[in-house]
Amino acid sequence: MHLIADAFGGDHAPLEVLKGCRRAADKLGVRITLAGSGEKIRACAAQHKISLDAMEILEAPGVFSMEYEPQTILREHKDSSMAVGLRALADGGADAFLSAGSTGALMVGATLIVKRLKGVRRGGIGAVLPSATTPFLLLDSGANAECSAEMLVNFALLGTVYMQSVLGIANPRVALANIGTEPGKGDSLRQEAYPLLAGQPNINFIGNIESREIPFGGCDVVVADGFTGNMILKLYEGMGKMLSGKFKKVFTGSPLGLLGMPFALPGLMGLKKMMDYKEYGGAPILGLNGVVIKAHGSSDAKAFYSAIRQAKQCVEGNMVQKMKENLPRREA
Amino acid sequence: MHLIADAFGGDHAPLEVLKGCRRAADKLGVRITLAGSGEKIRACAAQHKISLDAMEILEAPGVFSMEYEPQTILREHKDSSMAVGLRALADGGADAFLSAGSTGALMVGATLIVKRLKGVRRGGIGAVLPSATTPFLLLDSGANAECSAEMLVNFALLGTVYMQSVLGIANPRVALANIGTEPGKGDSLRQEAYPLLAGQPNINFIGNIESREIPFGGCDVVVADGFTGNMILKLYEGMGKMLSGKFKKVFTGSPLGLLGMPFALPGLMGLKKMMDYKEYGGAPILGLNGVVIKAHGSSDAKAFYSAIRQAKQCVEGNMVQKMKENLPRREA
Repeated sequence: MHLIADAFGGDHAPLEVLKGCRRAADKLGVRITLAGSGEKIRACAAQHKISLDAMEILEAPGVFSMEYEPQTILREHKDSSMAVGLRALADGGADAFLSAGSTGALMVGATLIVKRLKGVRRGGIGAVLPSATTPFLLLDSGANAECSAEMLVNFALLGTVYMQSVLGIANPRVALANIGTEPGKGDSLRQEAYPLLAGQPNINFIGNIESREIPFGGCDVVVADGFTGNMILKLYEGMGKMLSGKFKKVFTGSPLGLLGMPFALPGLMGLKKMMDYKEYGGAPILGLNGVVIKAHGSSDAKAFYSAIRQAKQCVEGNMVQKMKENLPRREA
Repeated sequence: MHLIADAFGGDHAPLEVLKGCRRAADKLGVRITLAGSGEKIRACAAQHKISLDAMEILEAPGVFSMEYEPQTILREHKDSSMAVGLRALADGGADAFLSAGSTGALMVGATLIVKRLKGVRRGGIGAVLPSATTPFLLLDSGANAECSAEMLVNFALLGTVYMQSVLGIANPRVALANIGTEPGKGDSLRQEAYPLLAGQPNINFIGNIESREIPFGGCDVVVADGFTGNMILKLYEGMGKMLSGKFKKVFTGSPLGLLGMPFALPGLMGLKKMMDYKEYGGAPILGLNGVVIKAHGSSDAKAFYSAIRQAKQCVEGNMVQKMKENLPRREA
C-alpha cells in the first residue's frame, strides 16, 4: 500500500507530519511518499533525527497557505505540496492522499483533480465522532453550506459504505439530523429529504434524529447539510472542551478536590481518550474517485498517524469500489 | 404583579405546577391565578396538602394534549387551560402567562391571541443557556424552522432587550451563529443577514460566532434560525447529559474512583447546578405584546418556580415596552 502525505499542511508541518509518517511506516507497514520541498523535508528530518528510510519524496516547491483562496489551488498554487500530491493520486500513483492543510483547498482540489464518482453531486467531509456507546460518522460536516435533498441522499449512501467498509459495521443505522423525530418535522429541505431517504434500498434509514440523542450513539451515520453538520461538529468539540475544563476544576479548584484527584485519574484518562480527536484519525472526503483524508489542522504526530491508519483502512476496505457499486447508476 | 399559570401543561401537571406556584406565591410575593378545572385543581391540592391561599382559579374545562395539532388551540381547544389563560393575558387580566404544555400550541396561541408587537415578523423562542462564564440567550431556539434575514435581525433586537431588561446586561454582545468567523462565511441566509445586523444601530453586533465558541460565553445573544437554534439547544443538552454521565462513571465505575467521590462532591454539585436547566427558568416567547414563558415540558416544582421568577423579571424589567421602543417603527 502506498500513501502520499502532504508534508507542508497543518499548523505543525513539516515536523509533526514527518514524525507521524515515520511511526506509520514502521508500525503499519505502509509505503509513504512525502509531497513537498525535498530540501526542507531533509533538513527538518536531519535536525530532529527522523529517519527517512523507505520513504520517498515527491518534489513540490510550493506551500498552500491557509490565507489563500481555496480555488487558487488549481492554477496559482498548482505547484503546492497539496496540489502535487492530489495530482499524483489522480494519476494512479498511490492509494490515498492525506493533508492537514486548508480544508477548502483540499475540497476544491480533491473534487476537481481526483474527481467525483459517477452519481455524486458534491463530495462531503465526514467526521468520525465519539458517543457514549460507539463512534458515528457525521456527513456532511462542513464542505457544502447549502445542500439539496439529493445531496443528503448521496451522503447517506456514502456514509453507509464508509461505516461498512472502514469501520466494519454490517448494517449501519442512518438518521437525518432534524428538530423532531416525526417524518414531517423540520424545514423544507428535511421534509423533502425524508421520503427520499426512506425510499432508498441500499441504506438502513431509521428516521430523524434530534441532536439531543446524537451524543448517545443513536445511529451510525448522521446525515446533515454542511451548515448544520459544521454546527454539530464544532459544538461537539466546544462542549467537550468546556465541560472537560469544568470537570478538571472539580479537582483543581479546591484543596479538597485535589485530594480526590489520584482516585479519579484512571477514569479521567479514559474519558479524555474517548473525547480525543487524535484517536479518531482525520476527516475523509467522501464521494471521490480516490481516498483523500483531511487531518485536523492542529494535528500532531499522533493525530497524523491515526489519519494514516484510517487511510489504510479505507484502502483495505475497498471503500471507493464499494461506493461505486452502491451509488445510483445515472450521472446526477 | 399578577401572573397566570397553565395548571394543566407539562408532564407533571397539575401537581408540580401547584407546588411551584405555591412556592412562588410565598417567596416572590406575586399574585397567581391558576388556569384549569377548579375541581381538579382543588382535588389535587387537597390530596397533597398544598394550600391555595391567595391564589385564584380561572375556570377552563379542557386540557391541551401534546398530541393535538398546535393550531387547534384557536378553535377546537379554545376551552383548554392554555387557550383560556392566553386570552386572559391578552384581555389585560394579568402581567404574564406561563405554561409547560405544547410548545407549538403555545407559539400559535401566543402569536394569534396575545399578538405580535408592531415590526415583528415572527416571534421567537429564547433559551437561556449556561456557558463557562455567563449565561447567554439563544434565539430562535426552535419556533421557526425557516427564517428570513429580516427575522434574524428581529431576533437580534428582541434578544438585546431581553438581556438588558431581564438579565441587566447593559450592552449585550450579539453574534450570528455561523460556520466561520469572517463576514462572508456561511450559507446565503447568513451572508444576507450579516450586513443587515452590522447596520443595526440598536444592537452591539460583534460578528459571527462558531458553535465551538458558544459554550465559552463568547457573546450574550446567539442569533440563529429556528432549525439551527434547535440543533444547538438540544445538542447542548445532550452533550451535557452524556458527558455528565461519563464523568459520574469516573467515580462509580471503579472501587478506586468511589474513594475519590467525597473529595470531588462539592465541585461536582457546583457543576451540576451550572448545567441544570431548572435553575434557568423557562423559554421566553419574544416579540409578543405580553410576557409569555414556556416552561420545560418535564418541569418539576423547582423548574416552574424558576420560570415564574423569570416572568416576574420580565415584567419588572418592563421588557415588552422596551421592545416596542427598540423595534423599527414600521409594520414589517
